[in-house]
Amino acid sequence: MSFPTFDDVVEAHDRIAPYIHKTPVLTSSFLNDLTGAELFFKCENFQKAGAFKVRGASNAVFGLSDEKAAKGVATHSSGNHALSLSYAAGRRGIPCHVVMPRTAPQAKKDAVRGYGGIITECEPSTTSREETFAKVEAETGAEFVHPYNDLRVITGQATCSRELVGQVEGLDAVVAPIGGGGMVSGTCLTLSNIAPDVKIYAAEPEQADDAYRSFKAGHIIADDAPVTVADGLKVPLKDNTWHYVSNHVTDILTASEDEIVEAMKLIWKRMKIVMEPSSAVPLATILKNPDVFAGKRVGVIITGGNVDLDNLPWMQG
Amino acid sequence: MSFPTFDDVVEAHDRIAPYIHKTPVLTSSFLNDLTGAELFFKCENFQKAGAFKVRGASNAVFGLSDEKAAKGVATHSSGNHALSLSYAAGRRGIPCHVVMPRTAPQAKKDAVRGYGGIITECEPSTTSREETFAKVEAETGAEFVHPYNDLRVITGQATCSRELVGQVEGLDAVVAPIGGGGMVSGTCLTLSNIAPDVKIYAAEPEQADDAYRSFKAGHIIADDAPVTVADGLKVPLKDNTWHYVSNHVTDILTASEDEIVEAMKLIWKRMKIVMEPSSAVPLATILKNPDVFAGKRVGVIITGGNVDLDNLPWMQG
Repeated sequence: MSFPTFDDVVEAHDRIAPYIHKTPVLTSSFLNDLTGAELFFKCENFQKAGAFKVRGASNAVFGLSDEKAAKGVATHSSGNHALSLSYAAGRRGIPCHVVMPRTAPQAKKDAVRGYGGIITECEPSTTSREETFAKVEAETGAEFVHPYNDLRVITGQATCSRELVGQVEGLDAVVAPIGGGGMVSGTCLTLSNIAPDVKIYAAEPEQADDAYRSFKAGHIIADDAPVTVADGLKVPLKDNTWHYVSNHVTDILTASEDEIVEAMKLIWKRMKIVMEPSSAVPLATILKNPDVFAGKRVGVIITGGNVDLDNLPWMQG
Repeated sequence: MSFPTFDDVVEAHDRIAPYIHKTPVLTSSFLNDLTGAELFFKCENFQKAGAFKVRGASNAVFGLSDEKAAKGVATHSSGNHALSLSYAAGRRGIPCHVVMPRTAPQAKKDAVRGYGGIITECEPSTTSREETFAKVEAETGAEFVHPYNDLRVITGQATCSRELVGQVEGLDAVVAPIGGGGMVSGTCLTLSNIAPDVKIYAAEPEQADDAYRSFKAGHIIADDAPVTVADGLKVPLKDNTWHYVSNHVTDILTASEDEIVEAMKLIWKRMKIVMEPSSAVPLATILKNPDVFAGKRVGVIITGGNVDLDNLPWMQG
């Protein structure tokens, strides 16, 4: 297995620059006072298609040869990766096939179609998804782009912390949410090369703490069906992301559901930005571990902003 | 009556610069496609204390002589002006007295106290408010700063469109919400001096359309107790703001409650920013009057971001 180099990150960045935003870094004097740290929020909620995932998806799509690209791309996802891959494929003018459970919310199907994705529905089981996906792949010849365990995707995500390091001097640490580990792996890829002294913390919901348990055990532990409000973080690590997490992450910190929702409301209220529950997990862990972060300059990755405004987590109680 | 000049605006801007943010201008390709216009959102929801009102409040507070300032400032407001005046007074290290009805939501009282304001409660009637306020003024000698009918306040608000004109070239129009008319008056003060060809539209809820009716009638018509989700826009024009509105506003456009809420959700969903119902009225009127704005470069003032997350307007239906 040949892992990408930092030159690959630079090449990816040049490749995707026309299709992504260089997202802003925001600060909050209130949240600095509250945490005792200096927090720098990298706002990927303002990214194209509403999440950092467009970086990796664009790198995969625009890295294809014309011949390969003509057959399109395909994935199985009902979240931000499906939106992002559809967006990137649309920009290249090629088809994007998305396999989604027929039970997925109509709003998510509409969003994928809004970005031009072609949905093939499957039954809500792993068997059906795999069978349906294999059929789509065989019929179309489309290139499979995994949501996170794909080195082209990880290399694309790595451009986020490359921007951050250019925007904020003297960072002591970066905290990013962890689900499958795509963003964290990209962060490791960049920082281990250009800022190796910056500590990397992954933040995870207690109720979906498979990465935490994997990290402590030293091998991948996959959960079956974790339940958490941070719905972007339910998926398990896989071999490529485990490589980065096990080699470069300083620690994995967890937070409870209540702490995540509280942190999310704090960010909405104080910073006036709309972001996803998953993106609140880093602040929740910073608030829970003041000794780790006090006096430090800390990058916080706000991974995305695609929320259902009619179904906010603090309305469900 | 001597109205402020543009030199006064420049002087105010220098005076308040250390205490306010130069707020960003955001764009949305989705909303441009939807409206057929090029929209430039001036994001005062990211302003200190969460609203443009801090500009006027800071100009009033920091323009006082040391002797005057020592006695503090006072106002009656349960909204953004109370927060902003408390914030500005706190930065100068002087007291800020706020008369609020005892029936005001606890969250609003807490917010004013959070910025250091000293609350004196009154009964929820105009008589009680005026009596209570007169007593506070007499006892403290504090300087009254009206939320909008104060030329120092209007001059402070005028710094917002001064920034906007520097941030966006070739604007054809600016649309701002209108309640008492402070922001619109400041916009008129600046644009009539430095960009007189830019049209100025005021946007108002249909259910609180006293400014619209005043504008058409040619004299101030004050409503008693309008009911609208845009709770920052319930107050009537007064002599100073009427001066600017009647002389410099191109037109006043109105939108229904449903249109305002729909525009608010669109902005939250597509731009990923938290802003107030009042700030959604401009987009609602732009969507309703495509012929007025199509093909134009339009500044849109997002006046503030202080919302009650537990009580969002689309949750009330």
